[in-house]
Order: sequence, then C-alpha cells, then structure tokens
Amino acid sequence: MPEAIRDAGPTHAGPAAEDRATEDRDVWRARWRAVRGFSEALAAPLSPEDMQVQSRTECSPTKWHLAHVTWFFETFILREVFPTRPPFRTDFPYLFNSYYEGAGPRQPRPQRGMITRPAVSEVMAWRAAVDAAMDGLIAHADDATWTGTVRPLLELGLSHEQQHQELVLMDLLDLFALHPSAPVYRAAEPPPAGEAAPLTWHRHPGGIVAVGHDAGGGGVAFDNEGPRHEVLLRPFRLARRCVTNGEWREFMVDGGYSRPDLWLMDGWAAAQREGWEAPRTWRRQGDGDDWRAFGLHGLQPLDPAAPVCHVSFYEADAYARWAGARLPTEEEWEVVAADLPVAGRFLNDPATDLLTPRPAPPAEAGDAPVQMFGDVWEWTASPYRPYPGYRPPAGTLGEYNGKFMSNQMVLRGGCCITPAGHLRATYRNFFYPHDRWAFSGLRLAEDD
Amino acid sequence: MPEAIRDAGPTHAGPAAEDRATEDRDVWRARWRAVRGFSEALAAPLSPEDMQVQSRTECSPTKWHLAHVTWFFETFILREVFPTRPPFRTDFPYLFNSYYEGAGPRQPRPQRGMITRPAVSEVMAWRAAVDAAMDGLIAHADDATWTGTVRPLLELGLSHEQQHQELVLMDLLDLFALHPSAPVYRAAEPPPAGEAAPLTWHRHPGGIVAVGHDAGGGGVAFDNEGPRHEVLLRPFRLARRCVTNGEWREFMVDGGYSRPDLWLMDGWAAAQREGWEAPRTWRRQGDGDDWRAFGLHGLQPLDPAAPVCHVSFYEADAYARWAGARLPTEEEWEVVAADLPVAGRFLNDPATDLLTPRPAPPAEAGDAPVQMFGDVWEWTASPYRPYPGYRPPAGTLGEYNGKFMSNQMVLRGGCCITPAGHLRATYRNFFYPHDRWAFSGLRLAEDD
Amino acid sequence: MPEAIRDAGPTHAGPAAEDRATEDRDVWRARWRAVRGFSEALAAPLSPEDMQVQSRTECSPTKWHLAHVTWFFETFILREVFPTRPPFRTDFPYLFNSYYEGAGPRQPRPQRGMITRPAVSEVMAWRAAVDAAMDGLIAHADDATWTGTVRPLLELGLSHEQQHQELVLMDLLDLFALHPSAPVYRAAEPPPAGEAAPLTWHRHPGGIVAVGHDAGGGGVAFDNEGPRHEVLLRPFRLARRCVTNGEWREFMVDGGYSRPDLWLMDGWAAAQREGWEAPRTWRRQGDGDDWRAFGLHGLQPLDPAAPVCHVSFYEADAYARWAGARLPTEEEWEVVAADLPVAGRFLNDPATDLLTPRPAPPAEAGDAPVQMFGDVWEWTASPYRPYPGYRPPAGTLGEYNGKFMSNQMVLRGGCCITPAGHLRATYRNFFYPHDRWAFSGLRLAEDD
Amino acid sequence: MPEAIRDAGPTHAGPAAEDRATEDRDVWRARWRAVRGFSEALAAPLSPEDMQVQSRTECSPTKWHLAHVTWFFETFILREVFPTRPPFRTDFPYLFNSYYEGAGPRQPRPQRGMITRPAVSEVMAWRAAVDAAMDGLIAHADDATWTGTVRPLLELGLSHEQQHQELVLMDLLDLFALHPSAPVYRAAEPPPAGEAAPLTWHRHPGGIVAVGHDAGGGGVAFDNEGPRHEVLLRPFRLARRCVTNGEWREFMVDGGYSRPDLWLMDGWAAAQREGWEAPRTWRRQGDGDDWRAFGLHGLQPLDPAAPVCHVSFYEADAYARWAGARLPTEEEWEVVAADLPVAGRFLNDPATDLLTPRPAPPAEAGDAPVQMFGDVWEWTASPYRPYPGYRPPAGTLGEYNGKFMSNQMVLRGGCCITPAGHLRATYRNFFYPHDRWAFSGLRLAEDD
Repeated sequence: MPEAIRDAGPTHAGPAAEDRATEDRDVWRARWRAVRGFSEALAAPLSPEDMQVQSRTECSPTKWHLAHVTWFFETFILREVFPTRPPFRTDFPYLFNSYYEGAGPRQPRPQRGMITRPAVSEVMAWRAAVDAAMDGLIAHADDATWTGTVRPLLELGLSHEQQHQELVLMDLLDLFALHPSAPVYRAAEPPPAGEAAPLTWHRHPGGIVAVGHDAGGGGVAFDNEGPRHEVLLRPFRLARRCVTNGEWREFMVDGGYSRPDLWLMDGWAAAQREGWEAPRTWRRQGDGDDWRAFGLHGLQPLDPAAPVCHVSFYEADAYARWAGARLPTEEEWEVVAADLPVAGRFLNDPATDLLTPRPAPPAEAGDAPVQMFGDVWEWTASPYRPYPGYRPPAGTLGEYNGKFMSNQMVLRGGCCITPAGHLRATYRNFFYPHDRWAFSGLRLAEDD
Repeated sequence: MPEAIRDAGPTHAGPAAEDRATEDRDVWRARWRAVRGFSEALAAPLSPEDMQVQSRTECSPTKWHLAHVTWFFETFILREVFPTRPPFRTDFPYLFNSYYEGAGPRQPRPQRGMITRPAVSEVMAWRAAVDAAMDGLIAHADDATWTGTVRPLLELGLSHEQQHQELVLMDLLDLFALHPSAPVYRAAEPPPAGEAAPLTWHRHPGGIVAVGHDAGGGGVAFDNEGPRHEVLLRPFRLARRCVTNGEWREFMVDGGYSRPDLWLMDGWAAAQREGWEAPRTWRRQGDGDDWRAFGLHGLQPLDPAAPVCHVSFYEADAYARWAGARLPTEEEWEVVAADLPVAGRFLNDPATDLLTPRPAPPAEAGDAPVQMFGDVWEWTASPYRPYPGYRPPAGTLGEYNGKFMSNQMVLRGGCCITPAGHLRATYRNFFYPHDRWAFSGLRLAEDD
Repeated sequence: MPEAIRDAGPTHAGPAAEDRATEDRDVWRARWRAVRGFSEALAAPLSPEDMQVQSRTECSPTKWHLAHVTWFFETFILREVFPTRPPFRTDFPYLFNSYYEGAGPRQPRPQRGMITRPAVSEVMAWRAAVDAAMDGLIAHADDATWTGTVRPLLELGLSHEQQHQELVLMDLLDLFALHPSAPVYRAAEPPPAGEAAPLTWHRHPGGIVAVGHDAGGGGVAFDNEGPRHEVLLRPFRLARRCVTNGEWREFMVDGGYSRPDLWLMDGWAAAQREGWEAPRTWRRQGDGDDWRAFGLHGLQPLDPAAPVCHVSFYEADAYARWAGARLPTEEEWEVVAADLPVAGRFLNDPATDLLTPRPAPPAEAGDAPVQMFGDVWEWTASPYRPYPGYRPPAGTLGEYNGKFMSNQMVLRGGCCITPAGHLRATYRNFFYPHDRWAFSGLRLAEDD
Repeated sequence: MPEAIRDAGPTHAGPAAEDRATEDRDVWRARWRAVRGFSEALAAPLSPEDMQVQSRTECSPTKWHLAHVTWFFETFILREVFPTRPPFRTDFPYLFNSYYEGAGPRQPRPQRGMITRPAVSEVMAWRAAVDAAMDGLIAHADDATWTGTVRPLLELGLSHEQQHQELVLMDLLDLFALHPSAPVYRAAEPPPAGEAAPLTWHRHPGGIVAVGHDAGGGGVAFDNEGPRHEVLLRPFRLARRCVTNGEWREFMVDGGYSRPDLWLMDGWAAAQREGWEAPRTWRRQGDGDDWRAFGLHGLQPLDPAAPVCHVSFYEADAYARWAGARLPTEEEWEVVAADLPVAGRFLNDPATDLLTPRPAPPAEAGDAPVQMFGDVWEWTASPYRPYPGYRPPAGTLGEYNGKFMSNQMVLRGGCCITPAGHLRATYRNFFYPHDRWAFSGLRLAEDD
C-alpha cells in the first residue's frame, strides 16, 4: 500500500462516481459488511497482545489499524452528515488520526504502540457502533446526501480499509519476525521444491503511449494515479515473470552481496550498515548455505520457483545489474499491464488466498507476461514523483497524497496480501529504496 | 530496586538462613501464597494490552515481570531439585531469563515488548503450574532438600518477586505517562493543600561507625550490602524530612533549571538535551506556573507538603547546591537510619498503601528524622561501588550483582511502591544519575 | 559540481575528441598552465590552516582538492604512459584517491581533514613536479600516445580540475560559515539595494524534443549527460529569471517556514530537525526581520534583486508551491537552454568573476529567459536517474558515475563559482534534496 | 591532566603563597620564560597544519592550546591589573576561552578545529606581546600588586600552562593515530625486548590516615585536592610496579577481551560497541598475534617490560579481576605515595624525557613501590567526587572545578608527558571510565 495512502487515507476521482448513481444501496451495504467483516476476520487469530505492539516507527499495531479505519468513517462520513454527533470517545480522534492536519492533532506515529487503552475489545465495540450507524445511513440517507456525500466517501473509505488490511498483515509479519520462536499466523503445507521455467521476454515497440488514470473515464483511483498523460517510450523487453528465489540464490552465490560494483552507492552503504546478506525474511540454518524463509505461515523451506520477496529497491537494482538487465520504468510496466486482466494471487480470493508468493503460472501462448498482478509488488526504476499536471485535491482528505512525492520509488502490481479487487494497472505504490518489510520483489526489463 | 537485582535476581547471605531451621513450613507456604498472590493482584486492574508494552529499554512489560519471577522459581528451585523436569514451555527460558549468563541465552532486553506470545493468560497458567509444584515441594521436600536448597532459595526468590512488584508499578507509570489521556491505575482523592512544616535538622557527631550488612548476624541481605565495615565520618547534620514539592517550586521559581552554575556539567548537559524544566511527572497547565503531577492515581494537583519525586540525581544535586546544603553520603544516611524502625509508607501495607508519596508525619520529640523509609527513594552523594572486601558470590545467582558497580549513584530508604517488609537500613538501590522514572527524591545534609 | 564527479572524476565521450586531432599542442599546453595556475591562484589568499580543515563529511579541505586533482594526472596519465614511474610519494595514492575502487584503497572520506601531512607546501611541490612532467609529455609524446591517451585524458583531467575549483570555493564557504568572525575570502563593495523587475514568462509549446549529449556530435560531456534521447513534453512556461532574495523574504514573511501544508513531508521533517528559518547563509541581525547574507565577501547586506542562494530542494519546492507554480523538469530546462548561448556570471571570467549571485540582467526583446547559466544552480523537479539507454563506461574512470543515481535531484545551469567555459546546456549537477551548501537557487515553471 | 582543570584552569590555595613573599622576582621571570618557551619548543616540530586540527570533541588543536593559555594570562592578570587594556584582538576572548562562564561566551568546544583564523603565526605574535607585557609587569609591578595579584596568578597560570603542555602531546597523539602513515613526532630507537621482573607487593597496615592537600601547610594545589581529611583504611597490599605490556598480552591470550564475566556491564557494552581487542594504540601486524604500539615515536615494537598504556578504566578493572586482584582506591594510592619522592619519568626532565612509558626501574631494598610517579597515569577504583568539606572557591577561576565531579574516575601519579615539577602525591586527575586517549595504565592492589 502506498505509504501516503496508508496513513493519510486515499482520495479519489470523485466525479466518476456519478455514473453509478443507479447502483443499489443494498449492494453497497453488502460491500460494506464484507469489507468490514473481513478486517475482523484477519484479526481473529490474534490475541490482544499481538494486536497491541508496534514493531517499529513505520509499522502500526493491528489494533491501531482497526481503529484508524473506523475513525475515518466516523470523521468523514458520520460526523460530516451529522455535525452534532460526538465522537464515540472524546480521545479517539486524537489517538487514531494518522496524518490529516486538517482533522486536528494526533498521537505521534512512533508512539502508537504505547496506546494500551482503549483495549481491543473497546475498539471492537466502536467498530460495531459505527457499523450500525453506517448501516442505517446507507439505508436511509436522503438521495442528495447519498449521492453527494455518502456513496463517494463510502467507496473511498472501503478502499482505504482494504489498504489497511494489507498493512495489518505486513506489519504483523514485521512483528512476528522479531519473535525468536517464529510464530505462525496461519499454518500451511510447505511448498513443493522445483525450479521455475527459464525466463522469456515480452517485447514492446515503444512509441507514444498514454498512462495514468483517466478521471473522465469512470472507475475509482487515487489522486496520485492521474492525470492520464502521454509519454514517449523506447522499444523494450519485459520479463514474463518475476525473479525467483532460486535465481536470487545464484546472485548470492556469485557474491551479489559483497561486490560494491553492482550497487548504487547509497544502497551499498545501507547494505553494509544493516548487514544485508540475503532477503529480509531469509534465515540461515547452520553455517552453510541452507536458507529458510519466514512468512505468515511461519518458517518454511525456500520455494525456488516462487518470486523473491522482501528485497529493497537497492537489492533489486543490484540484482538487475548483475543479471545484465535493468528494472522497468513504471510507464513501461503500466503500458504492458494495461492490456491484461487484473488477475493474480490476492488476499481474500478463495482461489488464491495463500499469504505467500507462489511460482508463476505457466506462460500462455504468445509472449504475454504472467504474474503482473499479485504475488509480489514489483520495484520499478521510477522515483515516486507527481505526474505532469498533477494537483493535490482540495480539502482534508487530499492534503497528504502529494507530500510523499520525494525520495521514494514506485512499485506496481499488488501482492499476495493485497485484497482481491483492490488493484488496477494504474495503481502506484511507493517505498523508500531501503525498505524491505513490504512484500516487494522485482521483474527485469531490457532495452530492445 | 537495584538495577542489577531487578534483572539478575538477588543473592543473599545463605548461612544466616540456617538459624531459622525450625520455622514451620506452613509459615513459608503462607508467605509464598501471599507474595505470589499479591503480584497477581497488582496486575488485576490491567488489560492484556497494558501488560504487553515495553515503554523503553530500561523498563519491562508487566507480563514479562510476571513471567520472569516464575522462571526464577522454575529454574533455580524446581529444575534444581528435579533435574529431569522440563521447562513448562521450551522457549520460556530464552524469553524470560534476564541477565543470567550462566542460565543460557536470552531475549535481548530492548526487545522484551515484542514477545506477544505467550499471552498473559498462558503466563498465568504457568504461574499456576509453578505455584502448585512449589506448594507440593514446600510441603513434601525431605529435610535436607528443604533446609539446604528450597528454603534459602525460596526466601531469595520471594524477595526477588517483591522487587519486581515495585518494578511492575514503576514501569507501568512510565508507560502510562506516555498516554495522552493520562490513565488511572487506581483512583484516589486529590491530596489536601498545605505546606510542610519548616525544615529542622538531626545532628550526628561522626566518628568511626560500622555500616553494611553483617553476614554473621542473621537476617537476609543482598550481596552488595556487605561486608560490614567501618568508616570514619565527620560530624554532620541530616534533614529531618525529605525536600517537598513546595520547596522544589521555590527552586524552580528562583531559576533552578536555568542557572548552569548550580549544576554538575554532565547534569546540565542532560537537562538541556532532554529539556528538563520540572520533575519528570509534573505537567504544566496552561502557560503559567500551574503544575500537576501524574502518578498511579492519574493527573492530580501537586501536594506542596509531599516529597518531591521523579527527580534525577543531577536535579537533586543542583537543588542541594541551591539550598546551600549537600546530599548525604550513603554511610551518613545508614548510620542514622540504623537506629530507626523500618517503618513508613510502603506498598501492600493496609495503613499506608497509597501509591504516591505523602507529606512527612509530624516529627517526634528529640531530633530524630522521619520519613527515612518509604515515600521516596533518597539520592545520596555516593557512587555505587563495592564495599571494601566485597567479592561477588559464586554461581549463576551471583554472577551479576557486582557488574553494575560503575556510573550509578546509590539511593536509600525505599518508597511508597516498595512492598512492605522488603526494606532494611543497609539496602542499596542504584540508578544512573540522569534516571528519573524511579520514585526518587532527596533529603539534605550539611557539615556540622 | 556533481557529487559523483567531484569525488570520482569525470568520464567523457572519448571518441568525440578525435575530431580535434589537428589542434596545436601549444594550445593544450597553454590550457594546461592556465587551469593549473588558476587552482593555485584560488588558494593564494588562504593560509595552510585554512586549507587543512574539513568542515564536514561532504566537504573536503582545499589542500585535499589540490592534491586529488594532481593524483588524477599522475595516476591516469603519467603512470599510464610510464608504467614504471613511481608515485611522487608512496602514501599519496592512498591519501588522495577519492572513490576509484579500481585505483586501490583510500583514506575514508570523513577523515580527509585529519591528514595534516603532507603539508600544503609539499602538495605544492608535488603539483610542480607533475606540472613539469606533464609539460614535457604534452610537448614530446609521440603522436599515437598524444592522440590516443594524453590529449583525451588531459581534456578530461582539466575538466575535472575545473570542477574541483568550484568545490574549493564551495567547501571553503562552508568552513568559513562556521567561524564566528565571518572571515572574508575576497573583499567587495556591498551590493546596491533595489528590487528586481517583475517576473515574466517564457512559453514553450512542448512536443517531442531531444535532450542529452549527442556522443556523435562532437564536444565533451560526462557520461551522465547521455545518451541523447527524445521525450514528450507538454506545453509549459518557464520564468525568465531566478527567484530573488526579495521574493524569498515575502515567502518568509508569509510564514513559508512554518506552514507544513507547503512542504513535502520529508522536507518538513528536515526543516524541523535542522531548524531552518531562512536560506542557509542568511543571518538575522537582532531580533527583528533584518537579515544579512554570508558569502565569500564576508557578511553583506541582502541584495533583494539577486537570486536566492543556498536553499535546499525542499525549500525550493515549498516556495514554488507557495507561489502557485512548480519547479521545471530537467528536460524542460534543457530544451529552453539549448537555444541560448552559454553565457552568464561564471568564475575566472574577468567580466563576471563576482563570487556571489547578482541580479538578472535586463531581459531582452522577445520572451527569452535570462540568467539560465551562472549565478545559481537551479533545482529541477527531476530525480537524478540514468537516461534511457545509459550504460556506465568501462574502466576505472567510469566506475562511479552511475553509482550516485538514487536519492538526489538534478540542478542545472552552473553558478557564479563555476569556472567559465566549463558548463553546457546538457550538464547535470545533483545533490540530495536537503543539501544547502552548494550555490543552489531556483527558477519557477508552470503548465501552460 | 584533570579534565576540569584542563579546560577551566586551575585554582589554588592562595594563602599558602604568602610564605614565599621574599622570593626574587627574577626567579619568577626565569620560571615564566622557561615555561612559556617550553610550550613553543613542544610545537616546534609541528607544521601549521598539524597545529590546526581537532581530532575529536574531547581534544583541542595545538594552536588552540597555545592561544588558550595566553588568553588566561591576558584575561586574569594583564587585564585585571590594567582594566583599560584591550584584548590583543577583539575576537580572541571568544575564540580562546574554554569553560569560564564568568569570562563571557566562547566558541563551542566541538568547533575549535574550525577556527582557521588566526593563523599559528598570529597566535605566536600574541604570545610574544603577552610575554613582553608580563615580563615588564613582573619586573615593575608595585609590591602590593605583585604580592596580592600577580605572583599568585602567575603561579597558577604557569601550572595551567604546564597542564596544557601535556594536553598538547596527548591530543597530538590522538590526531596522529588517525593518520594512515603513522607520523613520528620525535624519532627514537626501538625499545629493547625483555620481560619485567616478577611482581612483588608493598604492604600497608591501614588505619586512620590523612589524605588531601593541607591548605595551611604551604605548597600549591588545585582546589579538588582538598580539604585534607582523615579516612579509615583496611590493611592492603599495593603492587610495587605497574602492569606491563607483557602481562597485558597474557590477559589477551587468555581471552580477556571476550569474557563478559570479567567486565563491568557498562564496560562490556563499551568494549563491544567500540570493538576493543587491545589497548588503544596497539596495532596488529598481519593476522596473528604480532602487535606494535603507536606513540609519539611512531609505530614501534611492543616493549613487554614497559607499563601498558592507553587502556580505559573498564579494561583496567577487567584486568584486575582476571588477575585476582583489584584497583587501589585513591586514598590507598596516596597514603603510599606520600612517603615517596616525586620522582619518575616526566616531560622536560633531561634525564627522563622519553615521551613513552618505560620499564620500571629496579626495585629498591625493602618493599617500597617504584614507578608511582611518571610513566603512566594509574586508574584507581575511586569515582571522582568532592572530598568531605569541599567547597568550590569563589570567582571566575573557581567556577568549574567542582562541576566535573560526576561519572569520572580518579587517576594518580602523572605520566611520561606530564611536565617535570608539576606533580605531587595529592594530585587528582580524572577521566570517564571509557576514555583511552590519555597515557593511562594501572597498578594492582589487594586486601591484606
């Protein structure tokens, strides 16, 4: 999930929502219940203790996530529609606001884990109260309020809650990774061994192409995905699948982590400072070259055919240099992805809800790439900057999206813990180039 | 509680225990149940979330304290007497060892708050299992085992658990102080206003005096309290009560926090770096000079007659210089205290269990000081160093006490959250001179 | 000067040099003497003490710069042509290598100021010895050596030395700014008061344009300036002059440094952490709003019409947002600059050698911008990344240019301490977005 | 030299000076010239570059030392006697004050190395001007001024300058140690090999003894050496010589740097953090156990019989524990030293000016210890705290001595770079327990 969006809440291209004015409120109520219920289902295997702890500044406790998304609905819908409605508890807005300057002061981010009160049970009671009120509002709001306020903000708020569902699992993995006993969030069979099929390439002729979200074309998007604009690309080739764990081990065996000539200077400094010698979740067994990977299923054997995950941009960039290739730009990635269905291994999809990246499916006829969506977020070569003509939307909800547009790199495609239905080809995620706790991997590109 | 002892467990003068060979095992069983039960009573108002969080490196979660003291009994008594007895859970020794190198590796201290598993409920189950086993052992151990192993270690372990009872409250206050809503551990009436009686002095003629615990004289003590030895004191005067909040405000009004000439250089640097302008728990209301104090009763009006609390050694030293006096040495303090009953406001004493320092009781006839025990730990002028002839005791239990004997200052007398019955005149507590989260205050002294 | 180039030495498009095969060696010898002599002229007003100190990690002592550029000639020309020639002193290669892994180990950068030996006088003796050897080589090298090795590396090395001339002054200003007595490098009259003319705009229609250095077209360039490639621009407007000190004060008066909504989040954090409240070299006189600027002429009154200087990218970006505009991309800047003569206030140009940015000259007829070259480096909106198709050149000299291509932002146009003749429209400088010690200002842009 | 004294200037027991009222002014003038001239002789082998650099916060440049001691005479004598006399240059008092709050603001200590101006030559001119003025004042001051002001402050100032002579060499060694080519301050023959004679012990019966400077007994001393007072000692033994390099290697070979049980906890943390594996100036040759020591003579073979030097208190304490002994208290050390002549290897003594610690001379008959003075400062077990009854003297000169009395440990006896004539048995030096850049070693003690 984009860092900005995670903590600031998304904004979207409001006008597009008008086109769906006839949608049934019952459909929305069902969506509401499904998304809200799924958040609680994600928390079900966790104890109050598990949900309390903040593993580090960039992460938040599960309890905080569950409360923050609820604060979003209370603040931006319920208290907007009913201005005299008090907050559920007077200190909750301070405790569970993230970054919205316009919505008042807030608990400093590094101190979120210190909020032992309210208890998880109280947060759940709050959720129930907001659920009941929202349920009524969806059913009974007058048409103008429904169309002009509730429905667009509902769509936005549910998208926001989905993002935090990914964050719940991502931050939880970061926490569990600190536990010496390697806790298991959900048990699973170990993966089968077996190498991936050899890498093949998709070719693209380049030329003038359009990228970004078309605000006039319907569909929901965050403001950072627009405006749609044209760019000029040179012919390029894109790997048809992601780089695998097996390939990454070759990189390691070939000294990938000890050759400064492969690395960006800032990356080499980060690797030395933090002692990187493998992807973040890999753990060496004994003294040799036997590695296991820690994930939501606990400590498991490496799956050589699965995409490598939990690598930083710096590592991805070094790997690409080692492989004689490069990372794709975000425009290259998008122009290829735009022609593909948004299908892949996502969260909460009965067919694919695996919580860990899996080997690419067999490639189809032709040279279309696979695994563009789901499994792992893919680092691109593009710094996260505003698109030409970008303007932050007005108002509290929009205040922060543009603020994150420095020093970070764009990732594309979603991952195995991104909720199904949340992604699209124009979606831009972003992290600092040294970040490794997201489900981040890579796909190679080359000039053609 | 001494830092070393807090995390390493106390050691004591074993031989003295022999003299109590006829004590009834039932008495010990009752003590066992009382101490163990009181730990759980302290935790009763707390949620699992409250018990999970580590506010900073020097503090530990309540859950960790409850588990660590249990590990102590399991490791040093049950598994000592029954060498084949497995630990309750195999990963608990790693998770809940503190500093005992001889007892194996352990969770790094700054990461104690990351141990979300086991849950509080599992720790309580462990406590119950150890309680049952200990109960049986106390009743049924053969006499040699009882006298040679169980009883001395039981005495030591209960003393250790009492120390952790103080730490539970001390660390909890540190955590709650970070919560913007100022949580209340136990509600209480606000204190009455009213200044303390003017300060008077106790005179001591000095000369050769003996201090420290006499290993041959019976009674329990930690190793750092001995050997008993003679020192030569000059005549001195000791304030008959502690410095009060009201007096501290005079110091503040007189610019005490902005005059470098009053401070030790390292103290001034700490004060500037951390922005000290009042004792740690004082909070300014509005812009003026209206202060409240945060404590286990929540945010309360200042009690001008009560002892100032939560000040560092540096602040205490600056105050004494401002007052034209000095801090007493630990030997001066002890030689006066040795003639007084160990009575005062302590924890778990129905008469005095107040959780916050209270004004000194009326001074008695003569010039004997009051408030020497309880209310607040009193900073002394003495660095924490070994007594002449000190040798660390052998074995795992003793390994760490001498290790802390650098860079820290001695405090004496116990405080309002020290369990009743735990203190004695020879007891040495110690903290770094910049530490402020203990219940630490001061009493003045002068050359006579 | 580009960070990478500063410390790693430039690389250039060698083949282009072939076209100048008939140039007289005497011309090159004159160039050689002029560039080398100018470095020493820059150091003439400085004492050995001034030349010894490293003000911080990112800066280097004057003595080190003078030695490093000499090491470059000794290593890459003299010892290349005469493989048995020993270094002037055996420890100099270690001491004065910058970043060239291929040329051996080197003094850690933060420790350059600790090298009190050799003395400045010894470095000057080294310079003289290398000068004599180079003089002879230029005169007497056989034609193949001259054409294939000496002349291209000479051109490169002189360009490299020119870069370090800028660094000498830039780093010296950083050092002198730490001196409480505000030393003067070269005295000058205070600037006249007077505001700049109102801002007007240059319009560009956008479309497909080519940017970057054309390796086949002759002329020298660093590798990061190519390959030449096409990009698609939208119509835009570019300010005809830089933002002035007077305009910057309006920004300050309007709360520019205290409104987080104007800033990128990382920028706001940097501003708070470092206490920014004005450009880096501005110093407040008294308590009011009277500012002076420190420069190579010492502490001088602000010149309201001169370009603001010593601001970070974050400040430039915040200013642009405040002004309702934005920064130009590097491609926008270049496509406009490409049509203009490379003229402006540079170093060592008798007409313009002013050592401080000066007000824009009167705009000419039409809407062409002025002040594109010289005065201040101009922050762009572009992260420093490789151009499409970029490949680092082979060999030691090329090893590092690509290494810096993360986390930094591009600046364009040179400044008043860039040696005359060194700049070109394709030249890319780069610094971290928080850096403020370069002579960095800004020019606004807008969508058209 | 004591840290406080080094930077704050010494204070002394004024009254004692009265007894020397008849001393010839010519004698004082000769002393003046000798001390001042020796400072300049120490600097003679150094370049302006050598004298400019501050190797780290705790150290100062040679130039700064030479200027600071001159500021002391100008400020506290010349401008005291001639109140209208301006400073030599108006910015010098700011630049060269150390810690005297009462004497005005000053350059922050970590920035002393940034003061490239004045040049060394200007500092030397200042010294000459102050020398001339002082010379005249010594000759021509009226008797009251001479006796009441000039002579006592002269004695104090010369003692202060002697301290800075030690600091010049100590800080220079710290700087040269950072140079990869191991510069030589003064060349010398390598030491002969050969182990020290076996360790023997001096016995002391303990009892009530008096320590500290007797203000009424004549002689000069710093305020921290008094008041003289009685203490009660237990019988003890003191090693007759210091611990040697050869003995230290045994400690290393026996795992001294890898056994946490030998170390104080804070010491172990420091050793791990800073990667200690030998004394600070030892450098390993190759991969094995071949060590050399860096000193003012450059890199030399270890002298196994010479005292180990450049070890921290933590290392000294760990060594003593490993050796089954302990460090002496400062009172134990002093009571033994008080009966010995203040003789040993000091600086500026033609017989002993060796700049590096040398093996203990042959022990004499009886059990008197040797090497108590000179060679290396000896760590004691005593924290640096005020003596009973200590009060800081009034006025600017006295303001800081008491300020350093926390967190540091006392060292006794002077070292090979302490000027001859400067030491006495009551002299107290002090450093933080982790400091290693002083010439610090140790001598063992035991309970008897």
